[in-house]
Amino acid sequence: MHKKGKTVSFADPPVITGHAGVAGKKEGEGPLSEDFDAVFADTTMGQQSFELAESAMLRDAILRALSAAGKSPSDVDFILSGDLLDQCMGSAFAIKDLDIPAIGLYGACSTMALSLGVGAMLIDAGAKCCVAGTSSHFCSSERQFRFPLEYGGQRPPSAQWTVTGAGSAVLESKGEGVRIRAVHIGTITDYGITDAGNMGAAMAPAAARTIHDLLEDSATTPADYDQIVTGDLGAVGTKLLYQLMERDWGIQLAGHHKDCGMMIYDLKSQDVNAGGSGCGCGGSVLCSHILKKMEQGALRKVLFVATGALMSPTSTKQGNSIPGVAHGVVLEV
Amino acid sequence: MHKKGKTVSFADPPVITGHAGVAGKKEGEGPLSEDFDAVFADTTMGQQSFELAESAMLRDAILRALSAAGKSPSDVDFILSGDLLDQCMGSAFAIKDLDIPAIGLYGACSTMALSLGVGAMLIDAGAKCCVAGTSSHFCSSERQFRFPLEYGGQRPPSAQWTVTGAGSAVLESKGEGVRIRAVHIGTITDYGITDAGNMGAAMAPAAARTIHDLLEDSATTPADYDQIVTGDLGAVGTKLLYQLMERDWGIQLAGHHKDCGMMIYDLKSQDVNAGGSGCGCGGSVLCSHILKKMEQGALRKVLFVATGALMSPTSTKQGNSIPGVAHGVVLEV
Repeated sequence: MHKKGKTVSFADPPVITGHAGVAGKKEGEGPLSEDFDAVFADTTMGQQSFELAESAMLRDAILRALSAAGKSPSDVDFILSGDLLDQCMGSAFAIKDLDIPAIGLYGACSTMALSLGVGAMLIDAGAKCCVAGTSSHFCSSERQFRFPLEYGGQRPPSAQWTVTGAGSAVLESKGEGVRIRAVHIGTITDYGITDAGNMGAAMAPAAARTIHDLLEDSATTPADYDQIVTGDLGAVGTKLLYQLMERDWGIQLAGHHKDCGMMIYDLKSQDVNAGGSGCGCGGSVLCSHILKKMEQGALRKVLFVATGALMSPTSTKQGNSIPGVAHGVVLEV
Repeated sequence: MHKKGKTVSFADPPVITGHAGVAGKKEGEGPLSEDFDAVFADTTMGQQSFELAESAMLRDAILRALSAAGKSPSDVDFILSGDLLDQCMGSAFAIKDLDIPAIGLYGACSTMALSLGVGAMLIDAGAKCCVAGTSSHFCSSERQFRFPLEYGGQRPPSAQWTVTGAGSAVLESKGEGVRIRAVHIGTITDYGITDAGNMGAAMAPAAARTIHDLLEDSATTPADYDQIVTGDLGAVGTKLLYQLMERDWGIQLAGHHKDCGMMIYDLKSQDVNAGGSGCGCGGSVLCSHILKKMEQGALRKVLFVATGALMSPTSTKQGNSIPGVAHGVVLEV
């Protein structure tokens, strides 16, 4: 790897040789409906709990990505995955029968960029094939972080709707596909946000920092990318991101930027308040819509920045702040 | 990296240039007392919660390891860390002000080997300096996984005592210190154990598999190592490990093996049932006692296998099994 500042670039960029983004019923009714590789009308996926449904969905995305790459689990050196559930249960049960050496990650909603980023560095180090993935599920997340659905809790306008979805990508050193030019592992950034109903505000400072640092390290500007895509800032976080970039560094993002959390739902008609969130938001949108657009030539260079709020319910109840982190991946065809 | 089977070996082995293992009061009263770099008599470490105390302890171990390596946080390319708390809160708060690009990991009690293993592969890929770490805390873990201390729940004989401790190691490509010869990322192994009071049984099958596979990949036997050290199987898990190794592959481990969970406490007098557990068990023992013994020449080649039970309280309450994972690192002076 070649590292400048905090940004790693590759002389021989790893290739995404297969990918799949899958989603639930509500996501399948949104604007990206046609691009998902599968839409599951039954949010339990025939499982006995929402948590196991999330695992089944992630497993499906992994197997579809492997199939697209023409690989089987036994070809894979490492699988890198994590999710929002306590002890990353979603990933553990998704991959436990695949018989692949497992690197468990925790990056909250930033996990799709973290798994891609670490996977790309391992390919650069000589691994032949890595699988990167992540998932989230509205129902398991509500139980985990807020209230069980049966409680019928009300949601503030800044709240985001955790995406029921999963994304997975197969990385190899050679082959046909979108290449990973650079990776930026983010630094935890804490502006003291304590409102568990406003993830956008907790994540925006980390997103701003990662985007700024990566642009500076690589001597690029927003205009050098066909799109800068954040994982799940939603409407509130996106507005804050634009303000921070403008205020701190005079960088204008509007017009160069899209947020997966605002792309995946119709914010006017789908009752999702500030938009989508969760690891599965950036994961499913990147691994379906965005990578397909890149393969079709509609986008040639994309900076994907997945953002995570390191929110633990225990920590929030104890009155602590919610630190944010954002990892960036430069994708190119 | 050179990979044979599932085991990665390095032509130019990364070096542990600094390390520190710190622990709490009870651990400081045990047999390894003298080797810890710090023993904290106050289990709250002056913090307002046990969870923040765990973070403070991990931060202390990281700063001590950096100091021992003659490094400051700004020299570090990546910090790799995780813990047992929901959403890895222990690590997030430990490192959030250190200003280092953060790779969050989740490997349950196997995290010390996972952070060392992935860190070593990133050094091999060209990173100059990585910090690997992990922590656990008896009081935060009891609240997380079992009952808050105030409840005064009774513990079965197979239960282990979560170690209040943290370990951290600094990895570089060159320098003086113990070298990481090989890394084996484990595969999740599930024998259907559902007893949350018997972590040793959940982890032993994964430990057996990792040790067997690594020995086979590297064409070595237990006698080729001065010690095979597991992270925290405790008395029950160790017995099961010996039985599995003997039954499935005819490998005798007794006499070649020690378990950090049985080394850190006096099992007869310290009322810890089957011994110690938690990420901080393998973490603190490796990064103090074992690495010191290696530097002193008392041990020259050690296979460190940290074992994790991928136990989520939600999952256990839903009646699911507890899958295990074990990651291995071959250390040599």
